Amino acid sequence: MELRPEPTEGPLTAEELQLAARNRGLPLEALRYDLTPAGLHYLLVHFDIPDLDAVSWRLRVAGNVARALELSLDDIRSRPPQTMAVTLECAGNGRARLLPRPISQPWLNEAVSTAEWTGAPLAAILEDAGVKPDTVELVFTGADHGTEKGYEHDYARSLAVADALRPEVLLAYEMNGRPLEPQHGFPLRLVVPGWYGMTHVKWLSRIEAVREPFDGYQQRVAYFYKSHAEDPGRPVTRIRPRALMIPPGFPDFLTRRRIVERGPIQVTGRAWSGYSGIARVEFGADARWTDAATEPPRGPFAWSRWTTTWNATPGEHVLSCRATDAVGNSQPTEPPWNYQGMGNNLIQQVEVLVR
Amino acid sequence: MELRPEPTEGPLTAEELQLAARNRGLPLEALRYDLTPAGLHYLLVHFDIPDLDAVSWRLRVAGNVARALELSLDDIRSRPPQTMAVTLECAGNGRARLLPRPISQPWLNEAVSTAEWTGAPLAAILEDAGVKPDTVELVFTGADHGTEKGYEHDYARSLAVADALRPEVLLAYEMNGRPLEPQHGFPLRLVVPGWYGMTHVKWLSRIEAVREPFDGYQQRVAYFYKSHAEDPGRPVTRIRPRALMIPPGFPDFLTRRRIVERGPIQVTGRAWSGYSGIARVEFGADARWTDAATEPPRGPFAWSRWTTTWNATPGEHVLSCRATDAVGNSQPTEPPWNYQGMGNNLIQQVEVLVR
Repeated sequence: MELRPEPTEGPLTAEELQLAARNRGLPLEALRYDLTPAGLHYLLVHFDIPDLDAVSWRLRVAGNVARALELSLDDIRSRPPQTMAVTLECAGNGRARLLPRPISQPWLNEAVSTAEWTGAPLAAILEDAGVKPDTVELVFTGADHGTEKGYEHDYARSLAVADALRPEVLLAYEMNGRPLEPQHGFPLRLVVPGWYGMTHVKWLSRIEAVREPFDGYQQRVAYFYKSHAEDPGRPVTRIRPRALMIPPGFPDFLTRRRIVERGPIQVTGRAWSGYSGIARVEFGADARWTDAATEPPRGPFAWSRWTTTWNATPGEHVLSCRATDAVGNSQPTEPPWNYQGMGNNLIQQVEVLVR
Repeated sequence: MELRPEPTEGPLTAEELQLAARNRGLPLEALRYDLTPAGLHYLLVHFDIPDLDAVSWRLRVAGNVARALELSLDDIRSRPPQTMAVTLECAGNGRARLLPRPISQPWLNEAVSTAEWTGAPLAAILEDAGVKPDTVELVFTGADHGTEKGYEHDYARSLAVADALRPEVLLAYEMNGRPLEPQHGFPLRLVVPGWYGMTHVKWLSRIEAVREPFDGYQQRVAYFYKSHAEDPGRPVTRIRPRALMIPPGFPDFLTRRRIVERGPIQVTGRAWSGYSGIARVEFGADARWTDAATEPPRGPFAWSRWTTTWNATPGEHVLSCRATDAVGNSQPTEPPWNYQGMGNNLIQQVEVLVR
């Protein structure tokens, strides 16, 4: 099978175009919605969207447990539900702004969205199964199957027991109050608030308690911050802070460059971090930074809205924004390069022409 | 403002990547759904998705009419509704498979979907307004605004009176039984079954009866089959026939190349034409063509499902499919090049490795 090519300084490849045509970013004007409509939510599908039937589908909870479970969707829906607004972001967001550019889904800025997820808390299901004390991880396997870098596998990711038992971790069957659409994991997906998207396993079919760390491709190879191919690296986990603005004014079709009328305008956007709430959002116009006003988020794992007023004067300008979270993480002004293009939370830059 | 650059033999540009990251194709495995879920429907947004409020929004019907109308969404919803399954396709679908490649949204094959639209027939509204006999066209204007090739405009397209009065032309406020999501034209869009997507004006705000042919950018410049920049060309109207298959087997992440198990497999897909129903679908394996079985569509403007059995033998193969409609239009084996990359219904090719 195919090996992933080395990062490149060259132009976009046919493989990247194929991925960009399938996967979907959030059009940035849709940052206006506190909850992203299901059809506008960003989407990264590793393989194919599986064709699952809710009637015959079962979730199996197995491995190092006292009582293996086989749960229908009705079984899971009959448990006490929890609903939570959660901002999801792809770990590869910003990859195409790195140089050299790692070859994979070529996100610019737009692989983020927020939805309200309803599901059964995972902890109670694990309690019913009786996860044994010597368990080190829970492995979550989806129904999606393919090859990546030569490894054939069902998509699977693991969590340490303590992470899996966090009260906010859900097995979600609804998004924004309706059953999941196929592309978002129908009938059931894992939601791990605060973590990058690869953790939120879609089309969940199996949870297995294991006594050794899981070494599947998506867990031990794909999602690592590595400085080069042989670097063991550090695992990608929580979402790094980022702020994005709704590009003001109106666009040119081809270039997406913005035209803005002169005078004071309101600039607004969203900011989030998987580590804590947002403490500060700064707005930059031509590298002069001022503090924006932030609003309380819908919940501890949802983005915050921010606003500021900018006095637009005729000519060309570059607008930016930068988030700092409550535990002091902020966004870099130089891209944090790594071999697989993970977690690039470089500040956004929007070019505008004021007339 | 920006002029559109000349078609290129070079690699994908940064502008094309920006467009691909915003707009969305149908993941081809979603051809399995007779009606595309709203969140999987392909999407081409010229400018920004407007922020419209259904309460204050009005549709104005004006110009060369006896009685100008100003209709609320409730007014339109209170009229006798009509529901219809309609296959929509972007006129630029296939553009990125042309060489030289016109620089715009770089679709490969995937800019097509089918939804069930519910709305008020346009003809009755035009009758209420009393379109005067010397009217030659109706101009449909959306709330989306931007520049394209140096022209600043609200997106607008026109139809000849006879085309606008066709009984199947709808002002649609529901998609698959629910209010339109913002990206599909909330609160109201035009649906003109059989025509390429540019005709189905989203975020509709105004219908104007005019006595001279409309010369707006989207009507007189953008959607033409031209052989070169100065060629007046022919207007793009109805959807050319095309068949697509669900790529069989499972994919490699990066290359999307397919791995298929040996033995007889069912291959299935969809075929459609804006000119008539589908008369024939052929399936090609390594350029040996056989007829596939086609099923009746959900309606006269919806795609047909087709199926065939292929005996997969170990090794590499190239699979294709080709639609012919009831009035004899078929798909070319060489891309029908034109300057703006419109209507490229070149047959699909899917590379598979059988093991």
